[in-house]
Amino acid sequence: MRLAYIWITLLILSILIPAGFWYVDWSKSGDGAGLYSRDWLPEAVFGYWNPDDFYQSVDTVVGEFEGEECVACHRDMSPGIVKDWQASRHAQAEPKVYCSACHGSDHQNLHLPTPDICATCHATQHDQFMDEKRYGFPSHALAMERALDAKHFVDKPKAEVTACLQCHSVATKCDSCHSRHKFSAAEARRPEACITCHSGPPHPDDETYFNSAHGQLYLNEGQDWDWSKPLQKGNYPAPTCAYCHMSEGKHQVADKSIWKFGIKQINPLSSGNVVKRQQWIELCSDCHEAEWSAQQLSAMDRERKQAWSKLDEAEALLKGLRSDDLLSPSIHQRPPYPGDDAHTLLQRERIGFFEGQASAFYNVSPIERDYFDMWYFSNLGAYKGSAHGDVSFINKGHKAMDQQLEDIRRKVTNIRAAGKTEADKTDPENIWLKGEYTEYNREHN
Amino acid sequence: MRLAYIWITLLILSILIPAGFWYVDWSKSGDGAGLYSRDWLPEAVFGYWNPDDFYQSVDTVVGEFEGEECVACHRDMSPGIVKDWQASRHAQAEPKVYCSACHGSDHQNLHLPTPDICATCHATQHDQFMDEKRYGFPSHALAMERALDAKHFVDKPKAEVTACLQCHSVATKCDSCHSRHKFSAAEARRPEACITCHSGPPHPDDETYFNSAHGQLYLNEGQDWDWSKPLQKGNYPAPTCAYCHMSEGKHQVADKSIWKFGIKQINPLSSGNVVKRQQWIELCSDCHEAEWSAQQLSAMDRERKQAWSKLDEAEALLKGLRSDDLLSPSIHQRPPYPGDDAHTLLQRERIGFFEGQASAFYNVSPIERDYFDMWYFSNLGAYKGSAHGDVSFINKGHKAMDQQLEDIRRKVTNIRAAGKTEADKTDPENIWLKGEYTEYNREHN
Amino acid sequence: MRLAYIWITLLILSILIPAGFWYVDWSKSGDGAGLYSRDWLPEAVFGYWNPDDFYQSVDTVVGEFEGEECVACHRDMSPGIVKDWQASRHAQAEPKVYCSACHGSDHQNLHLPTPDICATCHATQHDQFMDEKRYGFPSHALAMERALDAKHFVDKPKAEVTACLQCHSVATKCDSCHSRHKFSAAEARRPEACITCHSGPPHPDDETYFNSAHGQLYLNEGQDWDWSKPLQKGNYPAPTCAYCHMSEGKHQVADKSIWKFGIKQINPLSSGNVVKRQQWIELCSDCHEAEWSAQQLSAMDRERKQAWSKLDEAEALLKGLRSDDLLSPSIHQRPPYPGDDAHTLLQRERIGFFEGQASAFYNVSPIERDYFDMWYFSNLGAYKGSAHGDVSFINKGHKAMDQQLEDIRRKVTNIRAAGKTEADKTDPENIWLKGEYTEYNREHN
Repeated sequence: MRLAYIWITLLILSILIPAGFWYVDWSKSGDGAGLYSRDWLPEAVFGYWNPDDFYQSVDTVVGEFEGEECVACHRDMSPGIVKDWQASRHAQAEPKVYCSACHGSDHQNLHLPTPDICATCHATQHDQFMDEKRYGFPSHALAMERALDAKHFVDKPKAEVTACLQCHSVATKCDSCHSRHKFSAAEARRPEACITCHSGPPHPDDETYFNSAHGQLYLNEGQDWDWSKPLQKGNYPAPTCAYCHMSEGKHQVADKSIWKFGIKQINPLSSGNVVKRQQWIELCSDCHEAEWSAQQLSAMDRERKQAWSKLDEAEALLKGLRSDDLLSPSIHQRPPYPGDDAHTLLQRERIGFFEGQASAFYNVSPIERDYFDMWYFSNLGAYKGSAHGDVSFINKGHKAMDQQLEDIRRKVTNIRAAGKTEADKTDPENIWLKGEYTEYNREHN
Repeated sequence: MRLAYIWITLLILSILIPAGFWYVDWSKSGDGAGLYSRDWLPEAVFGYWNPDDFYQSVDTVVGEFEGEECVACHRDMSPGIVKDWQASRHAQAEPKVYCSACHGSDHQNLHLPTPDICATCHATQHDQFMDEKRYGFPSHALAMERALDAKHFVDKPKAEVTACLQCHSVATKCDSCHSRHKFSAAEARRPEACITCHSGPPHPDDETYFNSAHGQLYLNEGQDWDWSKPLQKGNYPAPTCAYCHMSEGKHQVADKSIWKFGIKQINPLSSGNVVKRQQWIELCSDCHEAEWSAQQLSAMDRERKQAWSKLDEAEALLKGLRSDDLLSPSIHQRPPYPGDDAHTLLQRERIGFFEGQASAFYNVSPIERDYFDMWYFSNLGAYKGSAHGDVSFINKGHKAMDQQLEDIRRKVTNIRAAGKTEADKTDPENIWLKGEYTEYNREHN
Repeated sequence: MRLAYIWITLLILSILIPAGFWYVDWSKSGDGAGLYSRDWLPEAVFGYWNPDDFYQSVDTVVGEFEGEECVACHRDMSPGIVKDWQASRHAQAEPKVYCSACHGSDHQNLHLPTPDICATCHATQHDQFMDEKRYGFPSHALAMERALDAKHFVDKPKAEVTACLQCHSVATKCDSCHSRHKFSAAEARRPEACITCHSGPPHPDDETYFNSAHGQLYLNEGQDWDWSKPLQKGNYPAPTCAYCHMSEGKHQVADKSIWKFGIKQINPLSSGNVVKRQQWIELCSDCHEAEWSAQQLSAMDRERKQAWSKLDEAEALLKGLRSDDLLSPSIHQRPPYPGDDAHTLLQRERIGFFEGQASAFYNVSPIERDYFDMWYFSNLGAYKGSAHGDVSFINKGHKAMDQQLEDIRRKVTNIRAAGKTEADKTDPENIWLKGEYTEYNREHN
C-alpha cells in the first residue's frame, strides 16, 4: 500500500516537473521578453535599451563599409560623435578600433553593441561585471532580466515602463556609464557617470553624495583633480561613487554590500558582513583613522536598527488588519496581478519586503500604500543619507517615517473603531477597477 | 418688422463695441499696469523688473556724464561691474559701447535698458525674440504682459507677486539671460543662464536636464568645452538648453513647441506638429540615428496620452460633482475674483485648462485644488522628465498622478455618499473669506 | 511683622538660589554632556564631532613622534591626507606646522584639534568666531552647546541625534569649513564649504543660493574666478555665501542678521536693524544701485509680514483650541519631555516660537504638527528664498503655507463641530505612548 503511494507520487512529479519547465519555457517564448513575454510587448524604443532582445536596424543605406569609410561619411553627418571617437583610445589604438568593429559593416544590419561585443577586448571588466549575478538582485548585471520578469512590468502602462527600462539597460549596454563614443575611463570615474540613474527616490545617491562633505569637496575642487589616475589610495583628495564602490577599477559593484540597499533588515554582524565591514574599514582608512571608520559603520547599524523598529511596527499593524479582514479593498475585491495564477489559489495582501511588496506599488488599500511609501521612499532615503554621510537625508527620512508611522497608527485605530462595514462604505470595490495595474489598463495598454 | 430688429441690434452693437474698447482702455490707464491697472499698484521694486512701466530714477548725482567719465567714477564705486564691462565685447568694440549708450547721460534721469535699447544694435535677435508673440503664451516675449493681465495678480498678495515678476521680467530686460555687464554670449549658451527661472515646479527644466544623460555629460566635462563656438552641429559634445531650443542662436524659442509645455492635450500628429517633429528629428540627428529620435518622440506622445488619460478622468469626476452642485464651497459662497464682472452673470467653478483654471490656484474647493496640483505640478513634472530624458521625473510625476487620481476618486465617492448637507458641515462658507485671493486680502494688500 | 516676612523670604532665597546652581552643576556633571548629562550618553562616534567632551584615542601605536617622522609613516599609510597637508600653507610655513603641532606627539594620546588649538596661531579668526556667542542662538559658536542642552536631544533616538551633531560640530572643530588637511582659505570661500550643513529644510541655503542669479553666475563661471583673493569689493564677479555673510573674511557671521533666520517675527525697522540694513545696502552696493538694494530689503520685509500674517492666524486658531481643551491628545495624555520637571506643575501645549515649539517636533497633536511644519519648513523655505533671491522657493513656501493654513482652518472647524468626545475617539491616548520622544523610546534608546 505505502509503496503504491510512493509510485503514484513519483509518477505525478515526473509529469509535473517537466510540465513546469515547459510552462516557463513557453511563457518566455512569446514576442516580448521575460517571464511574461506572451502578455507584454515592448515599444519600438525599447530596442535601444535592450538591443539583444528588441533592436531591429531599419537603415536604408545599402552597402558594406569599413573603418575609414564610416568616418568619411559620418564626419559630416554626425561630426560630434566622430570627434568623440577621435578623442577616444579606440582611435589612438594600433590598429584603430573603428565603428565597424562594434557595429558591423553591413549598413542594413548594423547592430547596437551589447556587453559581449565590448567583452571581446575588455574581458576582465566584463567578467567582473557579470560576476554580480552571483549576488542576486539588486545588481547591475541582473537589472534588465529581473525587470522584465517582474509582474508589474506587464501591468504598468507601457508608456511608463519606458522610463524604467532606460536605467535598467545598464545590464545590456556598456555606454550607460562609458558614454559613447569617447568611452572615457576618466569620465566614468566621475560621479556624474553614475547619477543619471542613481538619483531621485528610492535611491537618492545623487542627492546624498553631493550633500556630503565628500561630495562638496568634489564640487569645490574636482575639476582640478587628475581623473586619468586609477581609483587607488592617494590619487584622489576625496572619494567619489566609483572610488568606494569600484575601488581599483573593479567592475563588480555588489560584493561589498552589507545592508542590501536598505530594502530589508539584515544582520550587520553575520560572518559574511564582518568580512565586508573589514573591507570598508580598510577602504575608509585610505584617508581616515580605522577607529573613525568602524564607528561610522556602527552608527549606520544603529540608524538602520532605528529605521526597522519603525517599519516593523507599521508592518505588524497592517498584518493585524489583514488577519481581521479589515483591509479594504481586500485582495478579493482588487483585480489580480497578471500571470498571478498561483495567487488565485492562495490570495493575500502582500505586506513587507519578504511577501513581495516591491511589486505592490498601487494595487493596494490606502494604508498599504502608506506603508509602501514609508518603506520604499522615506526609509531608503534615510539609508542613503546614512551610507553617504548626508545628515539632511537622515533627518528628512526619519521625520517622514515618524509621521507616516503615526498616520498609520491613527488610521488603524480609526479602521478598527469604524469596523469593516463602515470602512467599506468609503472604499468601494469599484475604485481599483478603474486604476492602474488592472484589467482596465491592460486592455488599453 | 424684421428690418427693425436688425437696425436695433446694429444700434446697440455700435454703442457696445466702442464702449468695450473704451472700458479696456480705461482699465489699462490706471496708475498700475495691465488690464487691472486701477485695482493693482506695483511695489517700488517692480521698477527693476519692468523698467518701462515702473522704473523711476531716484539718483541724487547731478550732471551729464559720458563714457570715460562714467568708468572713471564707477571703477572705484562698483569695480565688479566695470570689470565685467571691460571683459565684454562692448569694451572691445570700436568705438566702445559705454555705459551712457544704454543708460543715458543725465545722471538724474538714468534709465534701465529695455529690449528696444538693445535692439538699436542687436536688431536680428530682438526681432526673433519678439516674433514669439505670434505663438501666444507661454512665451518669453509675452511673459510680462500676460502676467500683468492675469486676474490673480491683482488678488495675490503683492509681496508674493514680487517673486513672480522677477522671472516674468524676461520680456522686459535682456539681462535675464545675458547677465550684466559682460553680456557674454558664451555664458548665455550655458544652461545656467536659463535655469534661474526654469527650475522648480511647475517647470523643472533645471532638475530634468541635469538628471538626464545630456545634463550629466555637461556637468562632467562642460568646463572644458569651447563655449565661444556657435550652437551648431559638431561644436558641442552634448546638447544644452540653448543648443536644442535656440539652435544656431535663434532667439525665437517657442516655434518648435509641439506639446504646448504639457498644459493642455494636443494632437501630436497635426500637420503643423508633423513639421515640428521633423525639425526635432533633424536636430537630434546631429548626434543620434534618425530612427532613434523618431521613437523617442513617439514614446513621449504615449507618455502624454497616458498622463491625459489620468487628468481627463479627474476632470470628468469634478465636472460631475459640479453638475450635481456638490462642490463646496460653491462658487456662490466664494468671494469673486477681482474684475470678474462677467462671471457675476454666469458663475461657475473653473475646472481644467480650457475653463481657465490656470488662475484658480486657491479660491477653490479642496478637491479642485487636488486636481490643480495633479495637473499643474505632477503632470508638468512628468512632461518635463519625458521631454528632457529624465526618467526619475517621469516616474515621480506618474506615481503622484496615480495617487492624486485615486485620492480624488475616493473623495468623490465620499462626497457623493455624504451628500451636499454633510459636506457643507465641514466646508463652511467662511473658510475662504479669510483666504488669499479674497476681499479680505485685497483690503490689506 | 513685615520685617519677619522679609527675613523669611531672604532665608528661603539664600537656600534656593545656591540649590539651583548646585542642581544645574550636578545635572551637567554626568557621563554625558550638557544640561541632561545624566539622562543622555553619547555614542562613540560623537567623539569625532565633539572631541573636547567625548574623544578618546584608542591608538595602539606606542611612542612619541615629531614632524618628519609622522610624515614618513603616513606618506604610505594615508597618502591623500599627507598630500593635502603638503599643498597647505602649513607645509610652506617656516618653520613647517607639522602634524604633531595640532595632534600632539604621544601616539597613544593623540587629540583631535579643537578651535582653541587652531587659535594659538589664528587668534583673530577665533576671537571673531567666538564673538558670535554674544548674539545668542542660532549662531555657529553656540551650535554644539545649545544642541546638547535641548530637551529633545535626550529624548530623540540616539541614532538620529548622530545626524544632528555632525553639523552642530561647527562649534567644536574648524575643519567643518576648512576641510582637513589643506585648510585652504580659497576652498572655504566657495559656497560648497557652507552647504554640507546649510542645505535641506529648514534652511535651504544651498537650494536657494544656487537657484538665484548669483548662484547661477557662480555655477556658470566660478571655476575661472581667482579664489585666492580676499572677499572684497571688485574681487568677485558675483557674491557667494561668504562674500556677503563673511565680508572681508570676518569670522563673525551672526552680527548682520536682521530677520533672525525667519524663525520669529521681528521689527525690521528697530534702531538696531536700521543699522544692519545700512550695512547690507553698503554691501549690495559693491555691485548694485543703493536704491535697488533698499527696495530689495523692503520687498523682503513685506514678504516676511505676509508670511507672519499666515502664521499668526494659524497660531491663534491653535491657541483657541487649547483654551477650549480641544487639542487631542492633550498635554496630560502625552508623555512628558525628559527633565521637564517644571512643566509637571504647569503643563501646557507649546504653540509658536515663544512658547518653545522648536522642541516640539513630534510629541504633539496632529494639528500642532501641521502648524509646526508650516512654520518650520514652509515659512523658513520662503524666508531663504526671499533672502537669497530664489523666487521658486518664495512661491513654493507661500503656496505650502496657504494650503497648510487652509487645512488647519478646516481641521479646526471639524474639531469644533465634533467636539472633544468625538475627537478623542480617533486620537486615543495610547497613540503617543508608542511614539518617539516617549518613555518607551527612552528605555530603548
